[in-house]
Amino acid sequence: MNFSSKLLEDAVAEFAKLPGVGQKTALRLVLHLLNQDKGDVEKFSATISKLRNEIQFCQVCLNISDHTVCEICASPKRDHSMICVVEDTRDVMAIENTSQYNGIYHVLGGLISPMDGIGPTDLEVDSLVERVKSTEIKEVIFALSATMEGDTTLFYLDKRLKNFDIIISTIARGIAFGGELEYVDEITLGRSIATRVPYSNSLSK
Amino acid sequence: MNFSSKLLEDAVAEFAKLPGVGQKTALRLVLHLLNQDKGDVEKFSATISKLRNEIQFCQVCLNISDHTVCEICASPKRDHSMICVVEDTRDVMAIENTSQYNGIYHVLGGLISPMDGIGPTDLEVDSLVERVKSTEIKEVIFALSATMEGDTTLFYLDKRLKNFDIIISTIARGIAFGGELEYVDEITLGRSIATRVPYSNSLSK
Repeated sequence: MNFSSKLLEDAVAEFAKLPGVGQKTALRLVLHLLNQDKGDVEKFSATISKLRNEIQFCQVCLNISDHTVCEICASPKRDHSMICVVEDTRDVMAIENTSQYNGIYHVLGGLISPMDGIGPTDLEVDSLVERVKSTEIKEVIFALSATMEGDTTLFYLDKRLKNFDIIISTIARGIAFGGELEYVDEITLGRSIATRVPYSNSLSK
Repeated sequence: MNFSSKLLEDAVAEFAKLPGVGQKTALRLVLHLLNQDKGDVEKFSATISKLRNEIQFCQVCLNISDHTVCEICASPKRDHSMICVVEDTRDVMAIENTSQYNGIYHVLGGLISPMDGIGPTDLEVDSLVERVKSTEIKEVIFALSATMEGDTTLFYLDKRLKNFDIIISTIARGIAFGGELEYVDEITLGRSIATRVPYSNSLSK
């Protein structure tokens, strides 16, 4: 694209670095910002800069937080003997939205993915093992994506944790609630038959 | 969504104000920025702020520019007797990319749209009339979208300009090059039959 202004070109180039944003979308976003009040754009710019410079991560669960210990880890109402291991902060938000979990979390910061060059040392694995070793943990629940990377991470973490006197569990996999059988993919359906559970166990407590 | 951090929430809210960006996309973009180096995010933030504060508009054609008169208007190689009227800077870029036009431009800054409360006084109409009146213009070419708003704007501008001794033209409408007849919409096909041109005229000069 031929830009009539270097400033415009630079701004479009910066936006186009964002995931899923191409040159045309970037240009649309930049022209939108140009139509806004100077104050609004200044606020946009300042908020992003402030976020990156002032953001903290909870010292316990490593979730994004405004404090050194996040609200969940600091809450006496939560069950501190149960750790739910997730990939990133979006998963914490998703689980919190269900209101079905009252324990605390551990944010790995990614999943093991040899293809992307991400190994166990790039993730918060040692800190998880340390937490299990030094605090009163009874159960570690893995809530990881049902993908190759998720399964690899699960396999590795299970090996690291199996010698501790804790219950290791993983969130249930199977057909989704409200899902019609004929539309479920073969692998999910096949696995959900193979890993069938007694009806009485399938009712949530 | 329940955010674990006010900083995160603010940043997501700012991104979600952009057109076509919802809460989930905004969160994805913000988490991407959080994974980048501080310097990169600072550059992103500074570029946007600089753009909004330092951008200029060409005094002649009102296109976005780094100078008081843009490169196109300042160029002695361009034909200054021909003005192409467009909606915004994206249209200038699109026409420049074709390399088929050697005249200068006039950027309206929008189209007349009563539905959105945009009238002629919100656009750069008077400055266009002034340019036609005070400079040596032989032809005004309208390159506006083939929409209701484009046609309304065209109708209005034609009324304002028709008493001047100039040629008023509009870019050709019809079936697109490479387009197969059976896939062309009815209105375009119908109009392209009604407004058929002698074969010799249809060949570009």
